Amino acid sequence: MVFCNCLLETPGRNQLRCFSKMSDEKLDAIFKVIDQEQDSFVQQLAEVVAIKSISGDISLHSECVKVVEWAKERLDKLGAETTIWPLGKRNLPDGQDVDLPPCVYSVLGRDPLKKTLLVYGHLDVQPADKDDGWNTDPFVLTEKDGKLFGRGSTDDKGPIVAWFAVVEVMQKLQIDIPVNLVFVLEAMEESGSEGLDEALKKNAKVFENVDFAVITDNYWLGKNKPCLTYGLRGISYYHLTVTGASQDLHSGIAGGTLPEALNDLIWLMSQLVDGKGKILVPGLQEMIAPLTDEERKRYKDIDFNPADYKKEMGAQGLLSNEKETLLQNRWRNPSLSLHGIEGAFSGWGSKTVIPGTVIGKFSIRLVPNMKNEDVDKAVISYLNDLWAKRGSPNVFKPVAGHGGPYYLADCEGKGYQAAATAIEKVFGVKPDFTREGGSIPVATSLQEVTGKAVVLLPLGACDDMAHSQNEKMNRSNFIQGTKVLAAYLLELAK
Amino acid sequence: MVFCNCLLETPGRNQLRCFSKMSDEKLDAIFKVIDQEQDSFVQQLAEVVAIKSISGDISLHSECVKVVEWAKERLDKLGAETTIWPLGKRNLPDGQDVDLPPCVYSVLGRDPLKKTLLVYGHLDVQPADKDDGWNTDPFVLTEKDGKLFGRGSTDDKGPIVAWFAVVEVMQKLQIDIPVNLVFVLEAMEESGSEGLDEALKKNAKVFENVDFAVITDNYWLGKNKPCLTYGLRGISYYHLTVTGASQDLHSGIAGGTLPEALNDLIWLMSQLVDGKGKILVPGLQEMIAPLTDEERKRYKDIDFNPADYKKEMGAQGLLSNEKETLLQNRWRNPSLSLHGIEGAFSGWGSKTVIPGTVIGKFSIRLVPNMKNEDVDKAVISYLNDLWAKRGSPNVFKPVAGHGGPYYLADCEGKGYQAAATAIEKVFGVKPDFTREGGSIPVATSLQEVTGKAVVLLPLGACDDMAHSQNEKMNRSNFIQGTKVLAAYLLELAK
Repeated sequence: MVFCNCLLETPGRNQLRCFSKMSDEKLDAIFKVIDQEQDSFVQQLAEVVAIKSISGDISLHSECVKVVEWAKERLDKLGAETTIWPLGKRNLPDGQDVDLPPCVYSVLGRDPLKKTLLVYGHLDVQPADKDDGWNTDPFVLTEKDGKLFGRGSTDDKGPIVAWFAVVEVMQKLQIDIPVNLVFVLEAMEESGSEGLDEALKKNAKVFENVDFAVITDNYWLGKNKPCLTYGLRGISYYHLTVTGASQDLHSGIAGGTLPEALNDLIWLMSQLVDGKGKILVPGLQEMIAPLTDEERKRYKDIDFNPADYKKEMGAQGLLSNEKETLLQNRWRNPSLSLHGIEGAFSGWGSKTVIPGTVIGKFSIRLVPNMKNEDVDKAVISYLNDLWAKRGSPNVFKPVAGHGGPYYLADCEGKGYQAAATAIEKVFGVKPDFTREGGSIPVATSLQEVTGKAVVLLPLGACDDMAHSQNEKMNRSNFIQGTKVLAAYLLELAK
Repeated sequence: MVFCNCLLETPGRNQLRCFSKMSDEKLDAIFKVIDQEQDSFVQQLAEVVAIKSISGDISLHSECVKVVEWAKERLDKLGAETTIWPLGKRNLPDGQDVDLPPCVYSVLGRDPLKKTLLVYGHLDVQPADKDDGWNTDPFVLTEKDGKLFGRGSTDDKGPIVAWFAVVEVMQKLQIDIPVNLVFVLEAMEESGSEGLDEALKKNAKVFENVDFAVITDNYWLGKNKPCLTYGLRGISYYHLTVTGASQDLHSGIAGGTLPEALNDLIWLMSQLVDGKGKILVPGLQEMIAPLTDEERKRYKDIDFNPADYKKEMGAQGLLSNEKETLLQNRWRNPSLSLHGIEGAFSGWGSKTVIPGTVIGKFSIRLVPNMKNEDVDKAVISYLNDLWAKRGSPNVFKPVAGHGGPYYLADCEGKGYQAAATAIEKVFGVKPDFTREGGSIPVATSLQEVTGKAVVLLPLGACDDMAHSQNEKMNRSNFIQGTKVLAAYLLELAK
């Protein structure tokens, strides 16, 4: 422990300087231990990556429960008071109901003289299979060239382990954690955070004292320079079911005799977006907030290179090679992506099947001022018009599935500025203030329930390949990120 | 054994009548034992259904080898001389080469005074998974209401077990099998019979003495009335690969920034066939043999009801409700079916992925006089034109995969007529002479290598759901079919 003489003086410039000095000394001590203990944190990450908590795969429900238990155990060890919130039931396509993976609500510190920080993270992951093209087992954290490969390494298990590491290190050093911490860790984020909104609203009272909120579940714009994110796109996800026959048929026996479901579906899906990325659903364009001169200017200063981006994505081409347009396409314009088809032949090789029922999946990323309900209405109406035009006797059922609103925060407040200072203390540079193309619907929910700006503080780099094969987190991002979180806690308390 | 006095007489009408009487007595004895032993044959079918010989799934290569060994063992027990023909190498998508599942060539009887019958069947099956919507484990033969459910029960393991059963029964009764039998049993039929044509041509000499050839790998037109099939459609199968990025991307991060591979592919696939089943590839229509008055007449007499067919298929609608048109669509007109997409999201639930590389699969059923090479040329040229029109920077590679020619036989010869008599002896009705929509490319290959008409003698019913979920063979079709094969052998020797 480091003591400062001036603590007994009347508060003034000297005292603040002294606080700052004390804080910096604490920080140096914390940073040193984080460096020393880094292998132990990597080991903790390996432990949780090994839990196959794919919330989109109902057969892995028990792994989602297991990962929640893992988090509770870790928080118990850190001395937090943890409650597991049941989130209700999940409707399966076969009509069955099963429990949703529950959520962790945990409190570390209830000092009324301290500020309270709400930390959100998610313990579930996207699907991953070695056969999809992973170079290593996605559930065995594997380090290569300073990169920690594994499903969830960056999205979002790494950042959660980093939060636990900060607490562990400060406790080890007997440094008083200068803010009360509230953790909300869910295991359904990759499946639309089903049940979370209701739980947050139901338990709104426990969030009344929250002063700041932070989410560490997104990525730097580039590979080298940290950023803080003040805007996110929302999402509306659609399932289009077409049934042509009560079961799959043989294309030799039935081909030419009936209107095939997959043929109808592929035609529908071909009418959603053109080759230049233009969304063909009428009415959406009009919902987009106009670009102001001030906003336009902001894109100019961002450190971003389309050619580098193209290379990082491994893309054959871009929809624009011009920096500002490309950034606007990612951050402030909607996009429509086709994801795939359930029920059709998807394996290797050749199968001469006429699928009986097929379900097309696509989603639209939403930007201010597109409201999910308005977009859903426009999309479903357009799809029904298309279907009427098609004149098929098959059965068509379009469903607006999980959705989440866009997010836009005021980045001038203390939450963002403290995070910016913390980043500068670790990396020696001011972060870019960016927006992001991805969706974290919980950002809006947390903003609503706390009434505070929710800081999006990314730890991972742009090439971490979240949701893709060979997801990784750089060891340096993981360890330096842990330091940022420590510095952030100290900054918030100032 | 039954002896006939007139065997010593000069051949004449009496002797023929006597032969016939003797033959009928033999047949009665054979039929009786087939009935008595039927549970044993069902058990043999269960044994081979349990072998997961999915030739389309490279990870099940060893099961395909196992099923070939199973057949060899059975044939060894029946006293046949069996050779396993290696069929060369198979090219995998990752560039690797592995052995193709081999093929069984087996001879039972080399009596120069007897006619020789070539029997073809296939030991491999279509993919099947309980999760695809099977009511029972597809690899556990399960009887319900007189139906034997299991992958391969009707396509084509049931018929192969029936052939073995006929030989077993005749040997048990010490009845001389009146024809030499040659079996060709492959394990790659569901994957385009890769390697078989070359093997047949290479070993053409062993087929020089073949007098008749038969394939029991198709289905009755209806559920109740047997038929003999004299025509088949051919097939050309296509794989369309589009690469937009070197790996899968997150639709939040990348959506709106690059031309997506799946978007390009779905557009391409939407340009192949319209909602009324009309193939949009230019040049194909002109290849179809014109419908003669004689052929047109033939469709009038066929026992077929579109409303029943619709019900059996569980179809929401038909492309025509008129019998002749529907039969012509199935048998003498080409059809194009979309089968699915490899590489896109195909699971349950929602995944916000932009697939990096996707492979669309479709096939065209060919009819006289569409030659595979001409169709391939027209299709690939059309696809390349579409791609040029699309103007995408992504990489497109269309490949004509496995194909097989149409088949049309003269059904007036002894091979067909003996089969017709055999069917009448078992079922008491003359079979319909039909064509079929499916493809058995080996029919043409066997016709070429033997110079004989290849009789297509179906044992299964129209609702057996080959290639689909809940494939089955009726126990009655299996057992009565075994009798037909026995009667056929005796008829061929007359």
